[in-house]
Amino acid sequence: MFIEKLKSLLGSELVSASESELYRHSKDESFHQPVEPDIICFPESTDDVVKIMQVANEFNVSVTPYGAGSGLEGQAIPVNKGITINFERMNKVIDFSPEDLTITIQPGITRSELNEVSNRQGLIFPIDPGADATIGGMVATNASGTTAVRYGSMRDQVLDLEIVLASGKVIRTGTKAKKSSSGYHLSGLFTGSEGTLGIITGISLRLHGIPEHTIAARCTFDTLSACAEAAQTILQCGIQVLRMELVDDKSIAAVNAYGNYDIPVAHSLFFEFAGTKVGVEEEAKLAEEVMRELGCNNWEDASTSKERSQLWTARHEIAYAYRHVKGVAVTGADVCVPISKLPEMVDYARLLIEESGLNGGILGHVGDGNFHTLVSFNPTIPSEQTKAEYTNEALTFRAIELGGTCTGEHGVGLGKRKFQEAEHGAAIEVMKDIKQLLDPSNLLNPGKIFY
Amino acid sequence: MFIEKLKSLLGSELVSASESELYRHSKDESFHQPVEPDIICFPESTDDVVKIMQVANEFNVSVTPYGAGSGLEGQAIPVNKGITINFERMNKVIDFSPEDLTITIQPGITRSELNEVSNRQGLIFPIDPGADATIGGMVATNASGTTAVRYGSMRDQVLDLEIVLASGKVIRTGTKAKKSSSGYHLSGLFTGSEGTLGIITGISLRLHGIPEHTIAARCTFDTLSACAEAAQTILQCGIQVLRMELVDDKSIAAVNAYGNYDIPVAHSLFFEFAGTKVGVEEEAKLAEEVMRELGCNNWEDASTSKERSQLWTARHEIAYAYRHVKGVAVTGADVCVPISKLPEMVDYARLLIEESGLNGGILGHVGDGNFHTLVSFNPTIPSEQTKAEYTNEALTFRAIELGGTCTGEHGVGLGKRKFQEAEHGAAIEVMKDIKQLLDPSNLLNPGKIFY
Repeated sequence: MFIEKLKSLLGSELVSASESELYRHSKDESFHQPVEPDIICFPESTDDVVKIMQVANEFNVSVTPYGAGSGLEGQAIPVNKGITINFERMNKVIDFSPEDLTITIQPGITRSELNEVSNRQGLIFPIDPGADATIGGMVATNASGTTAVRYGSMRDQVLDLEIVLASGKVIRTGTKAKKSSSGYHLSGLFTGSEGTLGIITGISLRLHGIPEHTIAARCTFDTLSACAEAAQTILQCGIQVLRMELVDDKSIAAVNAYGNYDIPVAHSLFFEFAGTKVGVEEEAKLAEEVMRELGCNNWEDASTSKERSQLWTARHEIAYAYRHVKGVAVTGADVCVPISKLPEMVDYARLLIEESGLNGGILGHVGDGNFHTLVSFNPTIPSEQTKAEYTNEALTFRAIELGGTCTGEHGVGLGKRKFQEAEHGAAIEVMKDIKQLLDPSNLLNPGKIFY
Repeated sequence: MFIEKLKSLLGSELVSASESELYRHSKDESFHQPVEPDIICFPESTDDVVKIMQVANEFNVSVTPYGAGSGLEGQAIPVNKGITINFERMNKVIDFSPEDLTITIQPGITRSELNEVSNRQGLIFPIDPGADATIGGMVATNASGTTAVRYGSMRDQVLDLEIVLASGKVIRTGTKAKKSSSGYHLSGLFTGSEGTLGIITGISLRLHGIPEHTIAARCTFDTLSACAEAAQTILQCGIQVLRMELVDDKSIAAVNAYGNYDIPVAHSLFFEFAGTKVGVEEEAKLAEEVMRELGCNNWEDASTSKERSQLWTARHEIAYAYRHVKGVAVTGADVCVPISKLPEMVDYARLLIEESGLNGGILGHVGDGNFHTLVSFNPTIPSEQTKAEYTNEALTFRAIELGGTCTGEHGVGLGKRKFQEAEHGAAIEVMKDIKQLLDPSNLLNPGKIFY
C-alpha cells in the first residue's frame, strides 16, 4: 500500500508514522479539531516531493503540507488523513544575491533563520506575523503582520515560486526580475492558495535594507474608536510608520498580568518609525504632535534598542497572554476593512464581546485596517463556544458588508470557509474551477478554502 | 448577423463601422501589422459589455478591448477582426474615498483624468508609463514606468476588479480592504492578462499622498555600465528615489535634436527624490556624494518646479524623438533583469545595436532593472527590419538566461509571444489551461500572449 511505496521510494528514514509524529502533525495553533495523517514524509528535495505526488496519484491519497504548525485556521490539519509533508529538511538557502536584494530558499526555512542569513549582509526579510513560521507556510497563507503597513504582505515579496503540481510536474511561476508583464501572474495565484493548487518547493523573495535608525512609541486614548481615528489621521498625514498597532485596555490588562508588566491600562496605539536618523526623528515628532492634538494620554517614546524592546515586548506577548491559559480555548476574527470603517468596526467588536459575556480583547494592524479579536471560552461548555463563534461571525459579516475581507492575513483554512460565498460571490465558481483544473482528483490539501 | 444584433441591443449610437473608426481601431503605437475590426462598440455600462459578450457568444465572434491605443505590443489590434470594445464612454469615477486613499473607476478614464480628480484631494495615482493611457489598458498590461521603483506596478495598486467573463457572467476579484488572504488572488491573475481572460469593467485602486517636496537631478558617466553600476549603488545604499532613469548618449543626442535642448551628450542618470523637505534634501545630498565618489560628471539638481521640469522634460520626449521621424519605424526590447546583471546587459545592448548598423538608443527604469532599446529602421527595407528584430531577440533571450523577463511593463501582446516558452517553460501549459478554462471558445482577444 502507499505507506510501503513511500518508504521504498524515499527511504524509511524520510517517513514516519510514530505516535508522537502523528500527534504533532494533527493540529496547528487553532482550536480546530485535530486529525492525524496516516504518514508523515520529510522530503529533502523537490524530487522527493515529486515522488510523493506520484504515490498520492497512484493510490489516490490526500497530501497536506506542514510548515511550523503555527497556522491559525487549520490549514495544516489533514482532514482527509493521508500524507502530510513536513518541510523541516528542506530549509536550505539555494541562492543568495545581496547585490540584487533577493534570495532563493527552500520552503522549510523559518523566518528567524532567513533573517539570520540576511542580517549578515545588512538586509532583512521584514514580514513579521509574530510566530516563527516557515517561509513556505507564510507564502501559502499570504501572511503579513505588524510591518505590512510598510512592506505589504507575502505576495508583495514573492518573485518566483517552484511548484510541484498535482500531476507531479514542476513549474516555476516567475523570474528573478523585480517586475514583469509576461504571461499570467501565477506567483500571485499560488501565493495564498494554502497548498490547494500545488506544493511550494522553492521561493525567490525580495529582501530589504536594514533601516539605519528606529524609534518606538506608545500612547493611549480614552476610547477605542479614538485610537482608530488617530491611526487614520497618521495615514492621511502621510507619516511613514514601520508598525502601528492598536491594543485595547482588556488586552493590556491581560498582558500586564501574564508578563508582569506595568503598562497603563487604556486603549493604546503602539508605533515604530524606521529610516534615516533625521527622517525618523521628524516622523516621530510629527506623529507625537498629531496624537497630542487629538488628545492622547501617556505618550512615551524610545530610540535605544533596550527601551524600544521594552515598549514593544508586551505587544508581541498578547496572543500568548490569551492562548496560554489552561483549560481555555481562543477564537478570533481577522477582519480587514477600509480604514475609514475602522472606528465603527472596533466599537462593534467591543460591543459583541461585551454581549457574549466572555473574556476577550481587540488588537491589530490598524495601519492596514486589519484587526483581530481574541475571545476566550471553555471548550467543554458548548454554549460558550457558540457565543464565541457568534462574535466572529457577526463581526466578519459586517466587515464584508463594509467592503472588507474575512481574513486579512491568517488565510481561510477551515475556519473562514463559511464567509467565502458572502465575500466572493460569483467569483467563488471561478476559484473552484481553477482548483478543479489544477487538482482534478482533489488530492491537494482537501477541505481547505472551500467546503 | 452580429452587427445588426449589436445595433439593436445597444442602440445604433453606441456602435460604429465608419471607415475612420475602423482605421483608428486597427492599430496601436507599435509597428505591428494593423487589422481592422468588423465593428466598434462604445459601451456606457457593465450591462452593455455583458450584452456584447452575449452577442459574441451567440455568433462566435472575437472581442478585443481598446483603451487609448497607446500600447506597444499590439494588444488592441483585433487580429481575428470581430468586435472591438472602446471604453471611452466608460470613464466615470464610481466611488472616491479620499479618507481611505482609494478610488473606484470605470476602465476608460485616463491617467491624467484620474489624477485631476485625485489631486484635488491632495492625492495622486503615481504610476506613469509616459503615455496618457486609460487605466483599463494599464491594468490589462500591468503597466508601470518611471515611478515603479517607488510604487511598484499596476498590480500593486489594484484592490478589486469587476470583470465580465467570456460567459457574460460578472464577477468581482477582490475587496476594498488594503490586504486579504481570502480565496485565490484573482485580482493579480486578471491584471496583466491583456483582455484574454475577461473584460475589465471596474477598477478599485490605491491612491497615494502627494509628496511634500521634490528634487530633480541629472548626472553623466563615461560609460553605460558605469551608469548601471551607479544605479545599483544607489539602491544598495537604500537611497529612496522616486525615479531613476538611464539614458544613453545616442538618446540624449536624439532628443537634443528633436526638442532643441542642450543637454550634455553623455550616458546619463536622471533622478527624482520626493518626500518631506528635510528627508528629500538628505537623500539628494547623499545621492550626489555617492555619484561624485563614483566619478560622475555634470551633476545638476533643481528643486523649483520650473527647473525640475526642465531637467526632466527631455527624458519624457525621448520616445517621440525616435518614433516621430517620417518614414521610420521603431522596435525595441523591454527587458527586466536582476539589478546586478544590468551593467553587462546595457553593454550587450549597445554592442547589438552597433552591430546592426542601425540607429538606436538605450533608456530605462534602471531602479527596477528594466530598460528599453529603441531601434529605428526603414520598414520598406526588409533586411533592416530583420536586423532590428534580431537586436531584440538576442537581447531578450540573454535577459531570460540571466533570470530576467522578456517584458518588464509593455506586456506580451503579439511581439513577445516568441519568448514565452523560453521564459515560462512548463508553466506555459498551466497558463494555456487557465485561458481554455475561462474562455473555452477563444473569444477574448485571441492571438495575444500565446500563438
